[in-house]
Amino acid sequence: MHTTTVGIIGGGPAGLLLARLLHNAGIDSVVLELRDRAYVEQRQRAGILEQATVDALRAAGAGARMDAEGIPHDGIELRFGRRAHRIDFPSLTGGRSVMVYAQTEVVKDLVALQLAEGDRLLFGAEVTSVEGADSDTPVVRFVHEGREQTLSCDYVVGCDGFHGVTRDSVPESLRTTYERTYPYSWLGVLAEAPPVYDELVYAHSERGFALASMRSATVSRLYLQVPNGTDPADWSSERIWDELDARFALDGDPGWKLERGRVTSKAVLPMRSHVTEPMRYGRVLLAGDAAHIVPPTGAKGLNLAVADVVVLARALARWRETGGTELLDAYSDTCLRRVWRAEHFSYAMTTMLHTGPAQSPFETKLQLSQLERIATSPHAAAELAENYTGLPLPR
Amino acid sequence: MHTTTVGIIGGGPAGLLLARLLHNAGIDSVVLELRDRAYVEQRQRAGILEQATVDALRAAGAGARMDAEGIPHDGIELRFGRRAHRIDFPSLTGGRSVMVYAQTEVVKDLVALQLAEGDRLLFGAEVTSVEGADSDTPVVRFVHEGREQTLSCDYVVGCDGFHGVTRDSVPESLRTTYERTYPYSWLGVLAEAPPVYDELVYAHSERGFALASMRSATVSRLYLQVPNGTDPADWSSERIWDELDARFALDGDPGWKLERGRVTSKAVLPMRSHVTEPMRYGRVLLAGDAAHIVPPTGAKGLNLAVADVVVLARALARWRETGGTELLDAYSDTCLRRVWRAEHFSYAMTTMLHTGPAQSPFETKLQLSQLERIATSPHAAAELAENYTGLPLPR
Repeated sequence: MHTTTVGIIGGGPAGLLLARLLHNAGIDSVVLELRDRAYVEQRQRAGILEQATVDALRAAGAGARMDAEGIPHDGIELRFGRRAHRIDFPSLTGGRSVMVYAQTEVVKDLVALQLAEGDRLLFGAEVTSVEGADSDTPVVRFVHEGREQTLSCDYVVGCDGFHGVTRDSVPESLRTTYERTYPYSWLGVLAEAPPVYDELVYAHSERGFALASMRSATVSRLYLQVPNGTDPADWSSERIWDELDARFALDGDPGWKLERGRVTSKAVLPMRSHVTEPMRYGRVLLAGDAAHIVPPTGAKGLNLAVADVVVLARALARWRETGGTELLDAYSDTCLRRVWRAEHFSYAMTTMLHTGPAQSPFETKLQLSQLERIATSPHAAAELAENYTGLPLPR
Repeated sequence: MHTTTVGIIGGGPAGLLLARLLHNAGIDSVVLELRDRAYVEQRQRAGILEQATVDALRAAGAGARMDAEGIPHDGIELRFGRRAHRIDFPSLTGGRSVMVYAQTEVVKDLVALQLAEGDRLLFGAEVTSVEGADSDTPVVRFVHEGREQTLSCDYVVGCDGFHGVTRDSVPESLRTTYERTYPYSWLGVLAEAPPVYDELVYAHSERGFALASMRSATVSRLYLQVPNGTDPADWSSERIWDELDARFALDGDPGWKLERGRVTSKAVLPMRSHVTEPMRYGRVLLAGDAAHIVPPTGAKGLNLAVADVVVLARALARWRETGGTELLDAYSDTCLRRVWRAEHFSYAMTTMLHTGPAQSPFETKLQLSQLERIATSPHAAAELAENYTGLPLPR
C-alpha cells in the first residue's frame, strides 16, 4: 500500500501541471499515467495557449521553453465568401493575445520538470478502480510493472480524459451528463511546410471548414472538415493540398496557393461536446477532459484543463494550510461557470464555420451574415476576441 | 385602363409609407389593398419601432400621433434562471432606443394621411396578376367593385405580404427562396390589464418562452410559446395568466404576479424565416413581408419593411429626377445586406429564448450560458442592443 496526499490519475497536461502546482505548494502527490513516456510526449493535440494559460505555466515555473520557442499571436484571420478579414486581439481585448505552442511541447516540459524536481510520476500504470470517494482516504487500485498495487490518498483527482476510469468509478446516479456529437470530423494533418500565414486562418467555404495553423516556422498543422467515418487513407497528400487550396481561395488573390511539403501525419478527429456535472464527488475530483470536452474549433480544451487545475491546486493548498474545505466545496461551481462559457463559444464557433451535411441554404446565409457582422461590428469582433483569448481565471 | 407611375400592391405599412414617400417626392402612385379599411386598421401586428423607423415616419410627416402617444423604451428586461437582467439601450448603443407604438396605429395614421392628401388608395381591390415585368410598362390586373380593371405603371411594387400575388407572378426559375420553419408558435394575447413593467420582458424558462409587451398604459400585449397546431380555445384566460406567472417567476421576488385583466383577443402565430432573392425583377420590385419574413422575437418585421420602402422611394425619386436607374439597380443588394443581418438576429434571439420540443439538456445549458454572457459582458450586451434598436438605414 502506497500513500500520498493527492493521487493524480493521468499524466497529460492537466495531471502534470497539477502535480507541479502541488509540488510548488509543498503538497505530495503521485501521478499515474497509463502510457509510456514516448507515447505521451508525441501525441498530437491542441496548440493554442490562452493568455491565462501562458501566465499559469510561467507562474508554475514551466514557461521557459514556451517563452523561447512559442509564437505569440495577436490575431486570427477569418475567410468567408472568398474574402479575408483579420481579428486583432490586443486592440479588441485591452491587450490580451494567445501563444502558439503545441500541447505536446507543454507535456514534454512538465514531464522533464516532474522527473527532475517533482514527486512520483509512474508511466505504464493502469488504474483499475477508484474506491472510497465518500471516505477520508480514497484508494486507487492500479497495475504497474505487472503487479497489482494500491495508492491511499487524501484526495484523488481524475485527469484521465474522456475515456478515463475515474469518472466511471463514480456511480452513474450521482452524475449528470450533457452531450452533443457533430455530424462532421476534422482531418488533422502535420506537414513539413512553412505556415501559410503569420497567424491562424479559419476558413468558411461551401466545401466545408478548413484551418491553417502551425507548429513552428517549418511545420504546418492543417485541418479539413470531413464526413464522420472518413478513412485518412482516402486522402492522398495531393488531395489534401488541392482541397486546402480550394477552401482557402480568395477572390482578391486568385493565384494564392499554400506552400506544399511532405505530409508526416494525418488522422481523423471526431467532434464532441460533453460536460459531466458536478466535478467533485466527496474526495474524488475531475479535471480537464475527464469532466468536459469541447470541439476543437475554439481551441479551448487544453486551456480549460489548465484553468481547472489552477483552481484545484489553490483549493488543495487552502485545505492543507487551514484544514478548510470551502474552496474545494466551491471547485465544481467555480470551474463549471467558465466551462459552460467555453462550451457555448466552442459550439458557436463550430456551427458558424462548418457546413453540416443537412445544412439548408438558409443556414448557410445565416453563417455568412454572422461572419459579415463580426467583420464589421467592433462589438461582435470583440465578443469573439474576448472568448478566443480566454476569460480571466476565476479568482 | 388606369395609368400611374408606381403601382403599389398592398396597403399595409410598407405600401402606405411608400405611397406617402412618393407623394412627398411628387411621384404619382396607386395603392391596391385587398381588404377593407376597417380590417386593415384593426389587424394586430408588431409594436416595436426601431430608431430608424421612428425617424423615417417623422421625416415622412407621419409621426405626429406616434410622438404624442408612442412610449419610448430605453431597454428590455431578460429573465432566465429565475433572475432578471436589464439591457440598457442608450448606454450600449450611443443613444439609440425604440418606440412602442402598434403597427395598427401606424397604419391608421398612414391611411388617414393618404386619404386626406395622397394619391389613390383603393380598398377591396383584388389583384389577380402582375404582367410585363420585363417591359417598360408593367400592368396590374385587379377586380374592384365587381369589375375587372387594369393599371398600367412605370414600376410595380409588391407590398402584399408573404401570401401576396406579386412574388408568385415572377417565374419561379428567377427566384431563390431561403426558408426555415420553427417547431413552436406564439399564443398572442391582448388584455385589458396594465403592463407588467415599464419595459418589455423577455423570459427564458423551462416551461418555454414568454414575452410581456404593451399597447398602452391600460392594455397589455402578451405572448406565450405554444406547440405548433395549438388551438387558442384550449387556453382559458385563467390558464393564460397562470402560465405567464409561472414563466416570469423570479427567485428574488416569489410573490410577484402579473396584474390580470380581461383577455380581449387571442390567436396563435406561426414562426417562420423566409427570404426571396432578388427583390427586383425588371420593373417589378418586392418590399417588406412579400420578400422576407422573420420570427417575431427580434421585433424586426415592420422595421425591415420601412427600411425597404425608404430605400426604394429614394431610388424611384432619383430615377424620376435624372432618368438614372443606378439606385433601382442596387435596391435588392442594398436591402438584402440589412435583411440578412435581421434574419440572423431574429433567428438567434428566437433560438436563444425558446425551448424546442426536441431540445437536449446540453442545448438548454448553452442558452443559459449565452444569456449569462449577455448579462455580464458589455460587448455581448451591446451586440444585442445594437441589433435590437436596429442598424442605421442604408445611405
